[in-house]
Formats: sequence, C-alpha cells, structure tokens
Amino acid sequence: MTWQFDYLIVGAGFAGLTMAERLTTQCGKSCLVVEKRPHIGGNAADRYDDHGVLVHSYGPHYFRTNSPKIVAYLSQFTDWRPVDYEILSYADQRYWRFPINLNTFEQLIGRSATSDEMEAWLAEHRVAIPEPRNSEEVILSQVGPLLYEKFFKGYTLKQWRRQPRDLDPSVCGRIPIRTNRDNRYLRETFQALPNAGYSRLFERMVTACGPRLRLLLNTDYREVVPHVAFRHMIFSGPIDELYDYRFGSLPYRSLRFSHQSFTKEQLVDREPISGRRGFWQPAMQVNYPGSEAFTRIVEIKHATGQACDNTTIVQEYPDDYGPGKEPFYPVPAADATSLFQQYDRLVGAGVVPACLQASIRHNGVAPGVSLIGRLATYRYYNMDQVVAMALSEFDRLRSTHHTTGHGHGTSDRLPRAA
Amino acid sequence: MTWQFDYLIVGAGFAGLTMAERLTTQCGKSCLVVEKRPHIGGNAADRYDDHGVLVHSYGPHYFRTNSPKIVAYLSQFTDWRPVDYEILSYADQRYWRFPINLNTFEQLIGRSATSDEMEAWLAEHRVAIPEPRNSEEVILSQVGPLLYEKFFKGYTLKQWRRQPRDLDPSVCGRIPIRTNRDNRYLRETFQALPNAGYSRLFERMVTACGPRLRLLLNTDYREVVPHVAFRHMIFSGPIDELYDYRFGSLPYRSLRFSHQSFTKEQLVDREPISGRRGFWQPAMQVNYPGSEAFTRIVEIKHATGQACDNTTIVQEYPDDYGPGKEPFYPVPAADATSLFQQYDRLVGAGVVPACLQASIRHNGVAPGVSLIGRLATYRYYNMDQVVAMALSEFDRLRSTHHTTGHGHGTSDRLPRAA
Repeated sequence: MTWQFDYLIVGAGFAGLTMAERLTTQCGKSCLVVEKRPHIGGNAADRYDDHGVLVHSYGPHYFRTNSPKIVAYLSQFTDWRPVDYEILSYADQRYWRFPINLNTFEQLIGRSATSDEMEAWLAEHRVAIPEPRNSEEVILSQVGPLLYEKFFKGYTLKQWRRQPRDLDPSVCGRIPIRTNRDNRYLRETFQALPNAGYSRLFERMVTACGPRLRLLLNTDYREVVPHVAFRHMIFSGPIDELYDYRFGSLPYRSLRFSHQSFTKEQLVDREPISGRRGFWQPAMQVNYPGSEAFTRIVEIKHATGQACDNTTIVQEYPDDYGPGKEPFYPVPAADATSLFQQYDRLVGAGVVPACLQASIRHNGVAPGVSLIGRLATYRYYNMDQVVAMALSEFDRLRSTHHTTGHGHGTSDRLPRAA
Repeated sequence: MTWQFDYLIVGAGFAGLTMAERLTTQCGKSCLVVEKRPHIGGNAADRYDDHGVLVHSYGPHYFRTNSPKIVAYLSQFTDWRPVDYEILSYADQRYWRFPINLNTFEQLIGRSATSDEMEAWLAEHRVAIPEPRNSEEVILSQVGPLLYEKFFKGYTLKQWRRQPRDLDPSVCGRIPIRTNRDNRYLRETFQALPNAGYSRLFERMVTACGPRLRLLLNTDYREVVPHVAFRHMIFSGPIDELYDYRFGSLPYRSLRFSHQSFTKEQLVDREPISGRRGFWQPAMQVNYPGSEAFTRIVEIKHATGQACDNTTIVQEYPDDYGPGKEPFYPVPAADATSLFQQYDRLVGAGVVPACLQASIRHNGVAPGVSLIGRLATYRYYNMDQVVAMALSEFDRLRSTHHTTGHGHGTSDRLPRAA
C-alpha cells in the first residue's frame, strides 16, 4: 500500500516551508516535506554555536523587504528586531565606510567635505560609459578607476572567480553609491531580523502545519518519490538535478566558512578596534577587497543583539562548487543564464522529470510540478522574494483547485498537461 | 514498490538515536527513525528560548553516571561541563540545604552542630520501621515526622497525587540523607552536562549516522508501518500503545512548565536573594514542598554556565496524564507495575503487535521487535541507563546476526519466533 499525500514538497527552506504552512493550514492538504540536510531552514538556518553565540550557519542573512504582505505573513511566526545592517570595507590597513558615501569620501581625502565636492570629484574620475554592459563598466561609470580598484575589483574577482567585466551589471550595480552620509547597506523599508532567530521562525512554521505535515530529513527526494503517491510536487531544489543534468550542470559559486570564537577576556585587546566591549570588529560585516583569501568577516552578534559575553566571527572563503558542497549563488552571467533557459524550457513544455515516472504508475497521470526558490529558478532572490514567490504559487494552486499542471512560482500561465 | 529499511526505529530520544548511530556506523544498516514530535532528542531536548537562554525543554536533565563506558560513548558527540547539581528546598519562607545533611540540621536548630549531635537527634526522632514498605515509611524510618512533613510529604503528594504511603519505597528512598556537610544531590562519580547542550549532542549523533539514516519527524509510527518494509523494529514508545491498550492505559504523571525570563536590569532586585549577578534564585533547583501548586523552580543557567545576561526560571506543575500531554513518569506503585507486567508478558511471548501485521505481508515473517527506553520498559531510567540499555541491545542484535526475534533491551534471552 503506497503512502499517499496531497503534496510532496522538496526542500525545507523558506520556499518549501511557506508552501507547507499554507497548504496544511489554509486548505487542509497533507504534505510530505523532504529535505536532504538533517535540519530545516535551508541556508537561512541559524544556530547557537559551541560558545553560545547565535550564528548564521550558511553565511549572514539580512532580512529586508518593501512588502507589508511578507512582513505580515512572517510575523505570524516571529517577532522582529529592527537592525541597521552596517558594513565596512577594510583596505590599506584601515576600515572604510561602505557602501561609498560622503563619509568614505572624507576618509579618502583626509578632511571634511561637502556633497558638492564629492560630486565634483566623482564627475572628474568617472568613466563615460552610456550603457554599462557588465559589472566593471557599471562601477567605472559611477566612481571611476580609483574607487573601483580599491573596493570592487578584488572583492568581485574573489567572490565569483570571474573578472567583473564578465559578470552582469547587476552584480556590482546592486550596491548603492551615495554623496550624502547615509551609511546603510540596504535600501528596503523594512530591515529586521527574526527576534529569536531564523531557526525558531522555521520551527514555528512547522508547528503551525500541525499533524498534516510529515517532515523527512537527511533524505534525497529521488529516493522517496518511487515509494509515495502525491498529486503535486513543489520543488525548491536545483532545476538541473531535477532533469538529471541532461544539458550539463548549472554553475554555482560555493562558500567555505571559518569560525573563530572569543571569550570576554580574549576580547579586551579588541576593544580599541571594535569600539564596543564584547565585540571583535567595529561592524556586523567587514569586506576585504584586498589580497586576503576571504571576502568578508561577519560578526553577526552586532545584528542579533544577543546579550552574550562571547562572540564569534566568520571568515567567508568563496569556493568552486562541486560534490559535497552547497550551491550558494547562481552565476550571474550570460553563459549560465542561457543554460538555465534550456532547463526552463523543459518546465514550460511540461516535460515530466524522469524521477516522476514512478508517480505516473501510482496515479495514472503525472503529478503537477511547481518550481520555486533560488535553486529551482536559478535566480539570486532575497528571502522576502522567495516567500513572495511561494505565496503567489500557493494562490495559483488554490485558484486552480489543485489542477495537475506544471508552472513556475511566479508564472501566471495556466497549468498544462504533462 | 515498498520502501525498504533494515531497521525501523520508533523515537528519536537517547534510546532511538543511540541505536540508529550504532546500527548505521558499526553495521552499515539502513535505519528509518520515526519521531512523533517535530524535533529530535525526546524529553532531553534543550533549546535557546526567545530570551537567548539555554533551557531544558521538558524539565531539567541532570546527566550523571558511574559508567566510564557510557561517558566514552557519548563523548564522541559532545564535550562536557562538570557540574555540581545543587538543590535547595524552600519552606517556612526560607531556603534550606537539601538533601538533608548537617548544614540543614544547623539551619533547623539555629546554631552550629556536629555530626554526632545530628545523629543523636535523628535517633530520637526516627520511627522504628524495620522493613519500610512504602515511601512514607522509608523517610519516617530515617528522619522522623518533623523533617518528613517539612520536606517530603507535600512535595511527593503534589508530584504523584498519591500519598507517599501509596508509593514504592524507592520514590523517596532515592534521595540521600547525610549527617556530614555533603550538599550534593546526586551520588554518581561522573556528573556533567553536554557542553553545548543536549540538542547539539543529538544533532551530532544524527550527523554521525550519515546517509544510511532517514529521519521522519512529526509522524506517528503507526502511520508509517504499513508503507515501509523492515526486518526489525526498535521501539522506544509506550508499550501499552504498541499493544493497542488492550489491558487498559498505563498510568503516567505528566508535567506543565511555566517559563519566566528576566533581563539584567530586572535581576538587580534579586541579587541579594540569588547571591549572584544575573541570577534569580540561589541554586539551580529549589524544591517547594509547601502549598504552592508547583513542585520546583529550576534555573538551569546555574548548571549550563551560559555566559548570558538574561535568565529564565521554570516552574514545574505536576499534571495528570491525558490526551495531548507528555507521559513523563511511570507511576512507581504496585497497581501500575502489575499492569505493565501484563504487557510485558506479551513481549516475552513474542506476540506480534497488530500494527506489524502489514509488515508480515511485506516480508512473509514478522519483524523482530526490541523494546528499549523509559516508556517501552515502564521504568524511571536515568539517561545513562537508557543509553546503556540501547548499547546492550545493539550488542545482542549484532551477536545474533540480526535474527528476527523479540527481546527486551536488557534481556539476554534468546530471540524467539513470533
């Protein structure tokens, strides 16, 4: 007798758990969530480390959004702690205000200055490029070669192992450049962290699902599919894996994290540098655009506000993606996008992934498939965008009364027969 | 096509995870662990609460053992923090040293005293009962009515909702009574907490299992059994449930927890009482044998040693067991033991639980069953004893080359046909 569910949900990150929560609580659907890692929360998971410090397990996750709807949705599962995400850049043996603004400019020229002076300086140094076609051109056209070399070139090269000129304009273009004193890294209206951490938020989503949820961890969905029956699959894993890499592997950048913890006593020497008792560095994140092998050091305690004597810093080393590593970032370049589009056309054409053949035998028809999340859509979405995509796909599924069909989370195209 | 495993393990507490870890890593067996709660660790689970304080989710768990073998086994998954588990009793508006010792006696008589004086006092007050048959008699025979009334009677009545005279001698008898100044609550040679908490220990056990483990949370094993094939079931759930309550429900005591957290500022007023900055009460555990509805207040930060400004205290209210509540304590009384023995005889006779009938259809033979843990054996085992039971059952299974058979964890009887 085959175990039956309404939905098979692949991945227990923001995408998968949002779908599970909506489908169980709003429609009474039974959901089996399958997650290959032994924990929920995906890359947004956080945890208290062995030194009692709350850290983001897979690199810092700075929650922000302009959408009151997303805030309202997630606020069912968490309180919030407002945060100014503050970032510095370390170059020439000193900390610089970052993103570049009037304060950075004053550090550069060694005296106080006005916005007019900074604008005049930029006008002089900027390279005239009417339509920047890559990340090098987008920065050169805004600030010129001196600031590009100091803050962007090395960092981007380390992060992507590609020259900025071989990356989409959006990669460096998403970082603001200002001539006022606004030090904020991000522009969204709502900037806050879940008050008790992301993992607690995810635990509450799971609890909200209640008894209609089954949560299967440490398990590859491909192992499960032949043994269960379901009418629809929500897939938040890598799209190339879903189609057995038939066009080749999509490129990703991966990361390696190096953690270091300090006690109150060990932090005394750092106080003149951090400016705060119990901290190692002067801001939540410091970028290292120079010759260091790591790109940044994150001390998330600045943002979590944890009342804890110890602290933990995390050095982040960009890494090539390969077996046993996590696929963190889709590569924002034309060759990668074009490969993704080949896979995406399979979804659009309703091609049933081979792993679902067994499901056809169970049900007579192919289950529907929804692709949501960063890996399934090969896009560098922020967390709020992933939740938005899931909520939108939920609305679509509900309005089509759960007709079997294929579709993207953000697509409004009608479901089609497989 | 039925999903196949070597072992189905019911429960992800100390018993289940120890078995899973051994079977996967030592014998390469595939294990499906099914846990009805949405987290691992059973009642030993701990977590950081919303105030950043590490708390024991289901009441305090004071790890201790006399077995170097158990320490060695668990030390693969955790470091340890040595702890003197310190307990006080609150009566007549003051804190008393507890368990009763010479310090308590001095508090009682209001002046310093010697062991000889205390022994003389006890000799005078003690009730002569050569063979105590219940918990009232065991305490009266050791310390007499005054100390019995002050420290034992009300506490025990609240905890069990039974008169001490209706409880086995072991209930109160396990608490030491001393005429020296030894304030320690427990007698074992090794007393320590997992350095980063119990839940981290359990996470590391899961990680150690590797890809042969499947971990299914938020799921009742009775739902899973018809859909999977397995050769042997390790059962750490309630034995009466396994046999569909055919002789009636075994009695349990349950607990309700009331958490209260305090910031550094809110704790200033408590400093004269707790004697330590950042703490609410003067010891890890304070018993309340009086008319309060709760039995104890636990401030586990005393034991975890967490470097955290906030603190959390937990009041523990004994509760009747019923639907939606956790079965915490088997009831140590003759009627309950006798009911348990009825169930136990089913196990001994190799009676196949009804829920395993589907398994017989899958495999042609009934799967073997091992019963381990506090609920399956209806015994108030400590954590080290549960781990010992699991390790011993593992050895038994390995030595019989995984012959299908029924058996207790601690039994050395040969497996028998179902």
